[in-house]
This record gives sequence, structure tokens and C-alpha cells, in this order.
Amino acid sequence: MDSLDLLRSLAIIIISAKFMGLIARKLHAPQVAGEIIAGLLIGPSVLNLVQDTDFIKGMAEIGVILLMFGAGLETSLGDLKKTGVKATLVATNGVLVPLVLGTLLYMGFYGFAPFGTNEFDNAIMIGCIMTATSVSITVQALRELGKLNGFVGTTIVSAAIIDDVIGILVLTMVLGLKDPSENLGSVALKTALFFVFAIGVGFVIYKVFEKMDQRWPHTRRIPIIGLAICFSMSYIAEKYFGVADITGAYIAGVILCSTDDHEYIARKMDINSYMLFGPIFFASIGLQTDVRDMNLNILWFSLAFVAVALIGKVIGCGVTAKCLGFTGEDSLKVGVGMMTRGEVALIVAQKGLSDGMLASKYFTSVILLIIISSIVTPILLKLLYEKHGEADYTDMKHPVRPARG
Amino acid sequence: MDSLDLLRSLAIIIISAKFMGLIARKLHAPQVAGEIIAGLLIGPSVLNLVQDTDFIKGMAEIGVILLMFGAGLETSLGDLKKTGVKATLVATNGVLVPLVLGTLLYMGFYGFAPFGTNEFDNAIMIGCIMTATSVSITVQALRELGKLNGFVGTTIVSAAIIDDVIGILVLTMVLGLKDPSENLGSVALKTALFFVFAIGVGFVIYKVFEKMDQRWPHTRRIPIIGLAICFSMSYIAEKYFGVADITGAYIAGVILCSTDDHEYIARKMDINSYMLFGPIFFASIGLQTDVRDMNLNILWFSLAFVAVALIGKVIGCGVTAKCLGFTGEDSLKVGVGMMTRGEVALIVAQKGLSDGMLASKYFTSVILLIIISSIVTPILLKLLYEKHGEADYTDMKHPVRPARG
Repeated sequence: MDSLDLLRSLAIIIISAKFMGLIARKLHAPQVAGEIIAGLLIGPSVLNLVQDTDFIKGMAEIGVILLMFGAGLETSLGDLKKTGVKATLVATNGVLVPLVLGTLLYMGFYGFAPFGTNEFDNAIMIGCIMTATSVSITVQALRELGKLNGFVGTTIVSAAIIDDVIGILVLTMVLGLKDPSENLGSVALKTALFFVFAIGVGFVIYKVFEKMDQRWPHTRRIPIIGLAICFSMSYIAEKYFGVADITGAYIAGVILCSTDDHEYIARKMDINSYMLFGPIFFASIGLQTDVRDMNLNILWFSLAFVAVALIGKVIGCGVTAKCLGFTGEDSLKVGVGMMTRGEVALIVAQKGLSDGMLASKYFTSVILLIIISSIVTPILLKLLYEKHGEADYTDMKHPVRPARG
Repeated sequence: MDSLDLLRSLAIIIISAKFMGLIARKLHAPQVAGEIIAGLLIGPSVLNLVQDTDFIKGMAEIGVILLMFGAGLETSLGDLKKTGVKATLVATNGVLVPLVLGTLLYMGFYGFAPFGTNEFDNAIMIGCIMTATSVSITVQALRELGKLNGFVGTTIVSAAIIDDVIGILVLTMVLGLKDPSENLGSVALKTALFFVFAIGVGFVIYKVFEKMDQRWPHTRRIPIIGLAICFSMSYIAEKYFGVADITGAYIAGVILCSTDDHEYIARKMDINSYMLFGPIFFASIGLQTDVRDMNLNILWFSLAFVAVALIGKVIGCGVTAKCLGFTGEDSLKVGVGMMTRGEVALIVAQKGLSDGMLASKYFTSVILLIIISSIVTPILLKLLYEKHGEADYTDMKHPVRPARG
């Protein structure tokens, strides 16, 4: 890629992503959706101003790693421990039900596929994309309703944290299947070995950072070494354990989240992400999505995909909440609150694409899911709270509200 | 480039650059030198762990643009106006004398070359590399001696700011010569047109940012749009005016330096630079430098290059200071204070390489110059101040000390 082209592409991507992102926010849609649409507009679908070159692909790849590292940096082990059984059960079923329903949806459209075939991999990847809740929009909506600290609110936020971890575990296993020589057992073994490795290395890293935090608090070397750890863990995970690089990045974030300087690291990473790599990643999703590939079949599939993804969370989380003693209305609130999807769904889809387990035409479905869920959830939550206030759960053990909410 | 390779390379570059940078700082050498040596060590010269791929080249390119943008963001037009005639004269001769001496040095080694030939371009590029003073180490040394606010100190800092601007102008003209169809007149015309364009656009940008600063102070959009302006100006400069992209980036910085939020922008840019792009650029210089290319001829040339570059500044700045009424000892201090070179010399060399006006073997000379000047200057300044305190210049018009010092 010519260096002039590079400057031109970067300028166009940054300015269009920011502009469309701001418009999206004005329309109460997620900013990410605006950035993707910017990519669609400047890409081959419409204006054809920017090509998805190897360089842009590489930058987007770094963007994905940084986003997952950032997500890990928000996952405090302390908060995880405090979550309690209820939120854990809500989260687990909130992952498993969409995973199964999504897999079945794909098979319903394209025919049954037995385990071990390529088609099965594609089907389960569709399920996998549906698993990751992105709770920030729900948190915003609950905050505006003044219900963030209620029992329903804390359950949702706690469940969303666990949801991330279970989602990553499921994704790691599913991506492990891409290698035809692997079976579920060997993938599970490698994944387990990686986590053992991560615990060991993580402990050492934690100790070293504790020393560094004391000797040189808030110095540049801390986020820089953090970044190097993120890249190293991503590399090691994929190279030596067959575990997805994004899992490695996420785990690197979780490890560093326990250190004293984790907020300082997160802030610096965040700047790197939102200034350049994040917009490039989201725009690159748009660049890869050629709307001219759209046909009636994909359109129907996308609508069914969105419906199943939303209903899957409502069933998975809502029914579990009901079984755990929530009232019917409050169970529905929990289910609806967990419906929102965001960046992670895209990251999973991108990973599926680059590992040959997903075609790029399904990006449209994922984009639709993010936009629709982000618009519908706050509206539904408001209606639900207006119709029925939250029941009284003073008898039940309140989960401790994590710092993240 | 494989995505795993990319993660591995980034991890190695970041960690080795930081590590060697810290060692360099411990040894009172510039951190940049450490980062370059890291590149030498991990590159083909020694360990051969990382290759200088297209992707790394692209990242380094962005690094250069961001560094020049950052330099521009430190160049306040208000400070420039206050600099006064004395500092301007010191700076001008401090650029012209090394430019001429460097050109002659090359011709002395490789034979006389008439204007318009390739060899002449190479010769003047060697001169060009010698022009840019990097004053940060001198500022540090003067601060430690308690002499930063003296007449000599303010003259040096003011001259260094002007030096940047004159250096950029000279570089722009020299790089304009690379196109064989251009003559000095047409290059000067295009350069002038670009500056007219920059003033016009700059005024509009300034007005828009003034409005944005008022409506949304310290919001993310401000540095993001700033970054987009940086990339756009770089592109427009090179594409439509034949002016180097780094000049465009520098000018974008100068424009934004006048806005209220310039410190906020500079801080965010700085994080992007030091975390990832800066280390990659400096390490990539090391990656491109194959020490096995070294031979006796280049070694002699490098030593002569360092000597001429140091003496050039002492003559250019020192003799001018003497003519302007400084005592002999203080003139020497001014000359010695202006001797230090840094990032900009490397950026110029890199630009010369990518425009085919310099061979990569001369990187060694530039690296040597940066290291030696940064080590020698503080020592010499200390000796000079210990031998003779600063004379009394209360009769002379004191230049206003710019904020940057």
C-alpha cells in the first residue's frame, strides 16, 4: 500500500466514523453502528473511497485485540467472586440458550449438519455470535430510570460480567473446533491447559506489577508493559495452545485488572482504541460488508437471526430468573435487560470470518442485531418499569453491585 | 503478514524498545537511542527476531506523521512572534551553516556534484539532516544548572523554536528537488502556494475549533478530528503541492497549537505516539540498519559527519551570537546548546530514504550524531558554566521566554 493512500484512507475512515458515530448517538442508536455504517458508505458498497487493504486489516486486527484487552481490564476477579449463584445461573443459561437456538436456526435454514462437519462449524458459530451480552446500553437505560441499584439492576450487571467470561470460554472451545484434527476433548484439554498457564503466568505478572506500581506508580512504562503483555498473551494463546488470540488478550486484561494501576492502564488503552484502532475496526466491518451480496434469503435469515437472538436471551435469562424466585414481570425485565449486543458480537463474527467458520454476508445480521437490540431494549425496559414497579426482594440475598455498573 | 506474526513482532518491538530505552536513560543517553538499538538487536543485524515488513513500515510511517504533528503542536505562533531578531538570526545561521557544511562534506567524500544531479540531491540531504536542533536535552541540562531563564538559556530555547520552522522549510524545498522535472523556482512556488493554502485552511480550522472548544471542551471528538486534520493535511501537502507529508503534519500541528484545547490534543496524541507508533518507528530505523553493511569508509564518513554536524551548529549559532554582542564564552554556550539532535534528524533521514535521496547505510551516522551530541552537550555546558558564569546582559533586549522551555 502506497504511503499516500494510507494517509488518505486513515483520514477518510477517522472522519467518517466519527461523524456517523455522532449521528448514531443523536438517534439514540449505538455509536458503533454509526461507525460500521461509515465503513459501508466509504467502502465498495457505496462510494468506494477506501479499500480494505492488508494494512487496514492489520490495524483492525490490532483494534480487536485492544478492544478485548479493554474488556478484560473491566473484569475484576473481585467482582466476579461477589456475583453470587443467582447471577451466575442467569448468565449461564443466557449464554447456552442462544448458543443452541442460534445453531438450530442455521440448521433450520440450511439443513441439519452433524458434528465435525464444516456446516456444523458454521452453525455453531452463528450460535456463538448470539451469546455475548453488551450491558452498557442497559446500564444507561436503568440509570435513567433510577433502577440501576435495584435487585433486577444488580442482577443484570452481575450476570453480564459472568456472561463475558462464559461467552469467552464457549468461543474458545468453538474456535478450537476449526482444526479438523481436533475433537471436543482435545480442545477442552488445550483450553484447560491454557487457563492453567494463564493462572501461573498471571500470578507472576500480578506480583511484578504490584512491585512496579509501588516503585513507579502512574509512569508510562506501566501501560506500555501492559500492552506488551496483551500482545504476548494473544500470541502465546493461539500459537502454543490453539486458543483464540482474542481470548489471550481478554485474559491479559483480566490479569492486569487486579493490579492497583489497572484504571491507569485502562485509560491509556482506551485512548489508543477510540482514537484510531477502534474506528478502523468498526469501519473495516463495514468495508467487508458488500450490500450488493444481499439477497432475499440473507434478509430473511437476518430477521430470524435477530428475533432468535433476542428471544434466546429473554428465555435463557428470564426463565432462569423466574425459577430463582423473581416475579414474572421482573424476570422479563432481566431477560430484556440482557438482550443488548455490541462490539463483542462483531469481534466474534470477525474471528469466525478470519478462521473460515463464517461468511462475510452474515455481518449484516450481526449489525442488525446490534442496532435493533440497542434501540429496542431501553424502550421495552421503560415500558416494563412503567407498567410494574420492581417487586420487593428484601428477603433474598442481594448480590453486591460490582464497581463496573 | 500473518496475524500471529504481527502480534509477535509488536510484542517484541514494544518490550525491547522500552527496555533499551530505560537502559539508555540510566546511562544519560537519549531514550530514542535505546529504542533504535533495540531495533538493531532484534533486527537482521543481530537476533533476526523481527522483520521490517510492509505492515511495520506502515506503522512507522504513521509514527513519523504523529511525531511531526506533535512537534507542530508544540510550536505556538504566539511564541514565534515573541522570539525577536537575535534568536531568529542565531537559528537561521544555525540551519544554513550545517546545511552547507554537510553538503560539502558529502562532496568531499564522494566528489563534486553539480546542482540537478542525483549525487547533489544525496549531498544536500546529508546537509539537511544536520539542520534540526532538538533542544529538549539542552533544556534539561540548563534546568539542572539553574540557567534556563538566563539570557543564554532563553536565546537557545527561542532559537530552537525558529530552527524547527526554518528546518522544515529547508527540508520541504530539498525534498521538492527529488522530482527531476522540478527546478528550484517551481519548488519554491509550490511550497509558497502550500503555505498560502495552509494559512487559509488554518484560519477556517482555527475558527471551527474555537467553536468546538466552547461547545464541547475536552471531548473525544476534539483530538479525533485533530488527528483527521493531521492525516488530511499530510495527504494534501504531498498529493497536491508536492510538499512532504511530514511538513503537512507539522503545519497541522502548528494550526491546532493556536486553539484553546491544544494541550488536550497534544496529550492524547502523545499517548498514541509513545505507546505504540513511536517505539515502532525508532525500532524500525534499527531494523533497517544492517550493521553488516558497515565498512571503513562509512565509519570514517560517520565520524566526519558527527564532527561537522556539531561544529556546524557551534559556528552557525556561536559566531552569530558573538556578532550580536554576546561574550565569547556565552557565544560558545549558545553554539554548544544548539548542537543536540534528536527525532527530527531521524525523520528527515527516513524521509530521504523513502524518497530515494539517501541510502540506509547513513542511518548509522545519524544515530551516532544523536547519541554523541546528547551525551556531549550537557557535559560541555556544565564545564562552560563552571568556568565562566553568564555575563550581564541587562542592557540588551531580553527575548520573552516561550512557554515550551
